[in-house]
Amino acid sequence: MDLSRRIERSLSRALALSCDGGMPPGLRQAVCDAVFPGGARIRPRLCLAVALANGDPAPATADAAAAAIELLHCASLVHDDMPCFDDADVRRGKPSVHRAHGEPLALLCGDSLIIRAFEALATGATDHPTALAPLVAELSRAAGMVSGLCAGQAWECEPNVELTQYHRAKTGALFVASAVAGAIAAGVAPEPWRLLGERLGEAYQVADDLRDALSTPEELGKPVGRDVALDRPSVVRELGLPCAVRRLRDLIAEALDAIPDCPGAIALRAQIEEEASRLLPRQAQRVA
Amino acid sequence: MDLSRRIERSLSRALALSCDGGMPPGLRQAVCDAVFPGGARIRPRLCLAVALANGDPAPATADAAAAAIELLHCASLVHDDMPCFDDADVRRGKPSVHRAHGEPLALLCGDSLIIRAFEALATGATDHPTALAPLVAELSRAAGMVSGLCAGQAWECEPNVELTQYHRAKTGALFVASAVAGAIAAGVAPEPWRLLGERLGEAYQVADDLRDALSTPEELGKPVGRDVALDRPSVVRELGLPCAVRRLRDLIAEALDAIPDCPGAIALRAQIEEEASRLLPRQAQRVA
Repeated sequence: MDLSRRIERSLSRALALSCDGGMPPGLRQAVCDAVFPGGARIRPRLCLAVALANGDPAPATADAAAAAIELLHCASLVHDDMPCFDDADVRRGKPSVHRAHGEPLALLCGDSLIIRAFEALATGATDHPTALAPLVAELSRAAGMVSGLCAGQAWECEPNVELTQYHRAKTGALFVASAVAGAIAAGVAPEPWRLLGERLGEAYQVADDLRDALSTPEELGKPVGRDVALDRPSVVRELGLPCAVRRLRDLIAEALDAIPDCPGAIALRAQIEEEASRLLPRQAQRVA
Repeated sequence: MDLSRRIERSLSRALALSCDGGMPPGLRQAVCDAVFPGGARIRPRLCLAVALANGDPAPATADAAAAAIELLHCASLVHDDMPCFDDADVRRGKPSVHRAHGEPLALLCGDSLIIRAFEALATGATDHPTALAPLVAELSRAAGMVSGLCAGQAWECEPNVELTQYHRAKTGALFVASAVAGAIAAGVAPEPWRLLGERLGEAYQVADDLRDALSTPEELGKPVGRDVALDRPSVVRELGLPCAVRRLRDLIAEALDAIPDCPGAIALRAQIEEEASRLLPRQAQRVA
């Protein structure tokens, strides 16, 4: 089964638990709209790719981890889009969840997806039960208030923000958790996989800033120029366009160098190279 | 150590993890204000009381479960108070979190507390590791979108609400999880403890409706008359005051009858009787 099908099946399974018996219909629809159809699913792809590079001995646990990571990511998108943050009308080419379903259900949708992420781990990690504690710990750190998604978003509310710390929390933490969770699910030492996640997370953040600066709303499926409009920190604003493009290329090279020795290292390298080639926006290819 | 001290220590420990190393200061303050000083801590008290009634063989796990339950409860209060729901200015006699810290940090505070609840389980349940999966599953169901806190709140967004289903989700689920989690932490069969949690949850909900109808804002530390003002379902509105008071007394009696056989049944019964005696508001004591 290819990665995409495996991820969509894991997400459906993680959410289908909720479709029996009298769930509030508005919330159900909001949750479905927040998760399907998805974006590139780049984080769960990384999680499963690392598990596969290590033989994928516990596929149910890897699937649960991948689904949980994507649910946490979707939750953060729903809450970040709300009026008190980005006030975004559009996401993935559709109305944002609060636009389609109202603020109350958008708030509950994000809460529900966070909760369901941990439920998916607890009920899905059946073929490697001792992985549950480190997986819950790793994912909660990546989503949490010290150095995870919540911390990253909260730095936007502070008068002084250090760009690296902000990006590490807002984007890097979940990439690191994706690589680390793949290793935990496969039963190998997770620490050597952290650097790969860090570098990919930084690369993705630079690419995101480049897309915000260079793309059209049609290409991106969401508004562009938001970093300037909302006075948000951005690598493009800080370094300028040519340096930002060079930085992206360096980070991808460093990510490839960071792949630890493992049985499937060659295939993993090829997959990361292929996915990374799509990170540089078309408009930036002539810059560097 | 008495229950109150034990609970406050567990909560401090669960949150202190977050106080090292560069947490965004606004979010840190919001989280502290959401959790300390607390209310009656009735849910974690129930959890620990059930664990103690069964010998409390794994106190670290019971502590982690109790803290996680209270963090989920605090998260739901913060989000329920927000302008898109109750728009409450006051909670526990202080400004609500969004009033004190703004909507963005209130939203992130609730998210962070949910995430931290699961992190506290994963890192704290060290003396009974196999309890982790059932505890995460039980607490996520109690907080979640099918029949938990999120579902209860989402029913408020629906045109047709069945009162029992609504209250079971919004209040009952976390009481059930409190009793069940105490049993899981103690390593005894959890199912026999479910009914106790159900009855106490219903009793608490009726008492809450009575307080909303009868108390002053000074007594309650929050606005009163909100059920009528927000056109929310309420047992007092549905049954009338005398029947609601009778219902509360019946539910407490049923809760006491529901205590399963266990080594500490007598002490548990005494504790529940004592706590239940405080549920009936002073103004209602002359009604029945």
